[in-house]
Amino acid sequence: MQALLLTPDQPDVIRVINDHTEPTPADGEVLIRVTLAGICATDLEIAKGYMGFTGIPGHEFVGIVERGPAELLNQRVVGEINCPCNACELCRAGLGNHCPNRTVLGIAGRDGAFAEYLNLPAANCHVVPTHLSDEQAVLTELLAAAVHVVDACTLTPDMRVTVLGAGRLGLLCAAAVAAHGPRPCVVDRNANRLKLARQWGLDTIPLDQLDRQPNQDVVVECTGSSAGLALAIELTRPAGTIVLKTTSADRADIDLAPIVIHELRIVGNRCGPFAAALDLLARDRVCVTDLISATYPLSQGADAFAAARQPDHLKILIRPGES
Amino acid sequence: MQALLLTPDQPDVIRVINDHTEPTPADGEVLIRVTLAGICATDLEIAKGYMGFTGIPGHEFVGIVERGPAELLNQRVVGEINCPCNACELCRAGLGNHCPNRTVLGIAGRDGAFAEYLNLPAANCHVVPTHLSDEQAVLTELLAAAVHVVDACTLTPDMRVTVLGAGRLGLLCAAAVAAHGPRPCVVDRNANRLKLARQWGLDTIPLDQLDRQPNQDVVVECTGSSAGLALAIELTRPAGTIVLKTTSADRADIDLAPIVIHELRIVGNRCGPFAAALDLLARDRVCVTDLISATYPLSQGADAFAAARQPDHLKILIRPGES
Repeated sequence: MQALLLTPDQPDVIRVINDHTEPTPADGEVLIRVTLAGICATDLEIAKGYMGFTGIPGHEFVGIVERGPAELLNQRVVGEINCPCNACELCRAGLGNHCPNRTVLGIAGRDGAFAEYLNLPAANCHVVPTHLSDEQAVLTELLAAAVHVVDACTLTPDMRVTVLGAGRLGLLCAAAVAAHGPRPCVVDRNANRLKLARQWGLDTIPLDQLDRQPNQDVVVECTGSSAGLALAIELTRPAGTIVLKTTSADRADIDLAPIVIHELRIVGNRCGPFAAALDLLARDRVCVTDLISATYPLSQGADAFAAARQPDHLKILIRPGES
Repeated sequence: MQALLLTPDQPDVIRVINDHTEPTPADGEVLIRVTLAGICATDLEIAKGYMGFTGIPGHEFVGIVERGPAELLNQRVVGEINCPCNACELCRAGLGNHCPNRTVLGIAGRDGAFAEYLNLPAANCHVVPTHLSDEQAVLTELLAAAVHVVDACTLTPDMRVTVLGAGRLGLLCAAAVAAHGPRPCVVDRNANRLKLARQWGLDTIPLDQLDRQPNQDVVVECTGSSAGLALAIELTRPAGTIVLKTTSADRADIDLAPIVIHELRIVGNRCGPFAAALDLLARDRVCVTDLISATYPLSQGADAFAAARQPDHLKILIRPGES
């Protein structure tokens, strides 16, 4: 099959391979024919040689189950990326996403979605409602991470919520918050990046015009920068919540005293619930396809990665089976 | 009356004044004759000229109400230190301890407890059970801050809890956690400081012998150092809780990515519930008096402050009315 590959000899070069062996599902796994996949920031890091991953990257996908149990066979599915051991203490505590023995689709110990086929545990698969397009479904994983913000704070419609950062994750977090009641304000250094938020009916404000008062009930930090937390601390009211989404390799220089004095809650927040994301998509609550900048055939995978590195592109997709 | 005073001309020199005007309680306030007061770290900072406070410092006290409503008159009381406006948005939301218009006993805008008399709103006063000694009661404020840790995390007896720092606050936090079920382990760089924790039946381990695994459900950070949070992050299990107590003037250099990747909750935690602390004292669950290193008469206030600066002294008390 055709696949994008990172090899141990050149882990920082994405290559298109046309004769990669098709995967064979293990017990409990299904074989999925990938119809559309998305490139995310983690993929760009992986393709720079970070994390030491070799194999097929890619973890945002939609596809058709070609081998598996009857209830999934021939169904269109999206899939959760963490494959836990289901035996360790964290798995038994319901924290499988944090299982130390887990593999992660296209990220750790398991080939991913930039290929014609992938394997995944059947338990990870979610059937996509038929009225959704592949372009909507492929963004389920990203939207799930955004919806997960809601799990970190009890939202009520009258709450003041600010989302820092109008990248794809910030925009989806803002949309997810709006779908749960509050009308968030999206802040970004780059006023151009706020256009889509306004188009979605959200409040926006460029960073240089922000009134830095500590009056927000919730601040969702999606800046992508280690400096974002300091701004979030500045904006959050006493006993308010900061939801931290940024994973940056840079260290942060932080004054911790205000966290204690104002009794702030800072909650790290990563992968989210697929069912809730699919529900938002099914109810047409978030225009996820507005994020798509371009779609490349799998055979042009290197070009797709180059396009994904351009800051004005929000989401680049890869379609297997095209040439 | 006799009082310790910081004056605008020399805000960093504690002076004993013998003829300070006795305070007159405002509407809703009571006049309290202080029988015993405690020096805490904040007092030491204030007496170095920080925070720009002038007047009478001191906020840990026990005393007798000499003027006030019938239900408090002649009662022995301790008092909450934050005096909120009861009108602003935060007060209406039940967050009076964070009221931006508040005065704070001996810390901000209000004379404190290192004097023969003080004023305080009647609403701040809690009657001390008669079988408690003044030496126990004077530590209510500190114990309340420690008990407040319990409000930041839902504790169950089987939880793994580590307390970082065996100063007076760390020790009381550990005792408060133990009183709520879990058996915490107290960690300190200085093995000598762990003696009292062991005497109280708590587990202890010197920092250099600590097995740095991310397996703690809750880590209570009381090191007094801005470096404490990084260690807490290292020790906390995925989706676990860090209760942050340290207020340090130093900035922290932190890798934020593990907070997101492991979805940690970091909760700032400051003043606590007096009623819960008095309840622990009344049930003899915490041997607070073990913390007392020495008691000085008010007339020797400067000596008391000097003693409180010695690292081997856990708690120095000041008794008005003695010479």
